[in-house]
Amino acid sequence: MIEEIIKQIRGGDVRSIARAISWIENDLPDKEALIDGLFKHTGKARILGITGPPGSGKSSLLNHIIQLEREKGKKIAVLAIDPSSPFTGGAILGDRVRMQKHATDSSVFIRSMASRGHLGGVAGATADALKVLDAAGFDLIIIETIGVGQTEIEVMNIVDLVMLVLVPGLGDEIQALKAGVMEIGDIFVINKCDKDEASRVKAEVEYVLHLKNEGDEEKSNPIFMTSATQNIGLQELVDGIDEEFRRMEENGRLSQRRLKRLELELKHILTSKIQAHVNKFLNTDNNLSDWLRQLANRQATPYQLVNRKVSQVLKELKE
Amino acid sequence: MIEEIIKQIRGGDVRSIARAISWIENDLPDKEALIDGLFKHTGKARILGITGPPGSGKSSLLNHIIQLEREKGKKIAVLAIDPSSPFTGGAILGDRVRMQKHATDSSVFIRSMASRGHLGGVAGATADALKVLDAAGFDLIIIETIGVGQTEIEVMNIVDLVMLVLVPGLGDEIQALKAGVMEIGDIFVINKCDKDEASRVKAEVEYVLHLKNEGDEEKSNPIFMTSATQNIGLQELVDGIDEEFRRMEENGRLSQRRLKRLELELKHILTSKIQAHVNKFLNTDNNLSDWLRQLANRQATPYQLVNRKVSQVLKELKE
Repeated sequence: MIEEIIKQIRGGDVRSIARAISWIENDLPDKEALIDGLFKHTGKARILGITGPPGSGKSSLLNHIIQLEREKGKKIAVLAIDPSSPFTGGAILGDRVRMQKHATDSSVFIRSMASRGHLGGVAGATADALKVLDAAGFDLIIIETIGVGQTEIEVMNIVDLVMLVLVPGLGDEIQALKAGVMEIGDIFVINKCDKDEASRVKAEVEYVLHLKNEGDEEKSNPIFMTSATQNIGLQELVDGIDEEFRRMEENGRLSQRRLKRLELELKHILTSKIQAHVNKFLNTDNNLSDWLRQLANRQATPYQLVNRKVSQVLKELKE
Repeated sequence: MIEEIIKQIRGGDVRSIARAISWIENDLPDKEALIDGLFKHTGKARILGITGPPGSGKSSLLNHIIQLEREKGKKIAVLAIDPSSPFTGGAILGDRVRMQKHATDSSVFIRSMASRGHLGGVAGATADALKVLDAAGFDLIIIETIGVGQTEIEVMNIVDLVMLVLVPGLGDEIQALKAGVMEIGDIFVINKCDKDEASRVKAEVEYVLHLKNEGDEEKSNPIFMTSATQNIGLQELVDGIDEEFRRMEENGRLSQRRLKRLELELKHILTSKIQAHVNKFLNTDNNLSDWLRQLANRQATPYQLVNRKVSQVLKELKE
């Protein structure tokens, strides 16, 4: 049955692809066998990450990118990492609706995945979902994250190329958010470039990139000025993305980065498996309640307990 | 020397407090002994978390809360969790400057801490910094986070009381962000309440809280309408915060939550220690490069490698 679904995924069957991603999302037991079976068919797709602060117009840009890449004949998958909770339900429905003009195009697959509740972290689940889409034969896989927190940075660490979308006039706090992610951007987009402050934002980005790249031409990051609503700079952006992928293929950075992704994946899997053992240990017998009682009475400190018992924990893990 | 610094911290010496937080931030070897020594002096401070989307005016609110709580004679510490990176440096300087009117008040301690680069995650480091501030005798410790991503949610999981600041007119994407954090809020503030859309936002919040609390009176969450700039509802908010702390003390939820915090701390410490061992294992001999070679050649899958070797890893961990 796993072999059957792998065959259907490789044939591009949308229902099988969606089903496989649900397996990953829900951490079903068959997930590992599925990914194991798909793994050898991966490594072809280009993986683009799009991130940036809320309100920067990522979804509108994404719509244009999909359209222009479709005109180049590419098969495209979009995976939106969704910060919604189980409690409130599908929060980025609005964004998905905005992309609906592509909904009838069978060469465009759009899917959201919750960013919470993954034992191995959302980056691990995203890495698995990427394998499904890669094996399914999509040429370009786009990962969109909302916001620019630690989770989003982790997700962006496993894509081939990161496009960071900035925008004028979001105030100080947004600029603070921006600072933390300047490092992970490969391509910078200043959207809503028709706004007054756009050139100031561009100058700021150039200054920060100058510091980051220390004047090294090799490391230079392209900056694009766009307006998704005014239809400015979009073809240039899409051509620029393709050009950057070509450049990374030629200078070896793409394979380097993919090796790095495999390394991160290994760590995610190792950590999540060990974490599962740790949780099991803590919840076995009265380990946890006993520890908590000692802590609440200030008879021991958290570090003391962990250090004293870590060898015991690890011994139990081994068995 | 550790005993000396512990004594100074307990005496409220600002330089020692700042130094201790730097130890935690930089994960210095003496950190554990310091926290172990402080632990028995903790458990007195009230810990308030303030979170909400960028642009919701958290910093202005914070300023007013500090001022009004000072008028009640309380000693206050603020720890701002800062998403800036080592590369770009102190990004929320702007916020800190805005709080400078309290800078000359010796009963107000304000400090930012980077949200990145902590082995045990920022929540673990924050928990340690809380112990320093708690032992130093502050009555109220306020943790402020910028943004509402997974990191921020983790930080909010270790405070006593979470105040979620919302604001009208931040658009769909912000509302999506909001959705993920509605669960963690204890007190809801709709700031900029003089804006047109404020009552609609309030109705939305009431609706979501109604679903969340299933009409259970006990679980009901207060909602405050404020305008930090127009000076509306601020005294009511501060009195409401104090009232909520009292309510939690009386009905036992405060001690429950503190027990939960100790549990999370244990897990953070265990995980970070095990993570350190995993990294050491991967970087020992040629484990990692050997694994990566097999993956790059598609001779094995990440799950196969981890599953095959997990017992070996765990054995090595034990030694």
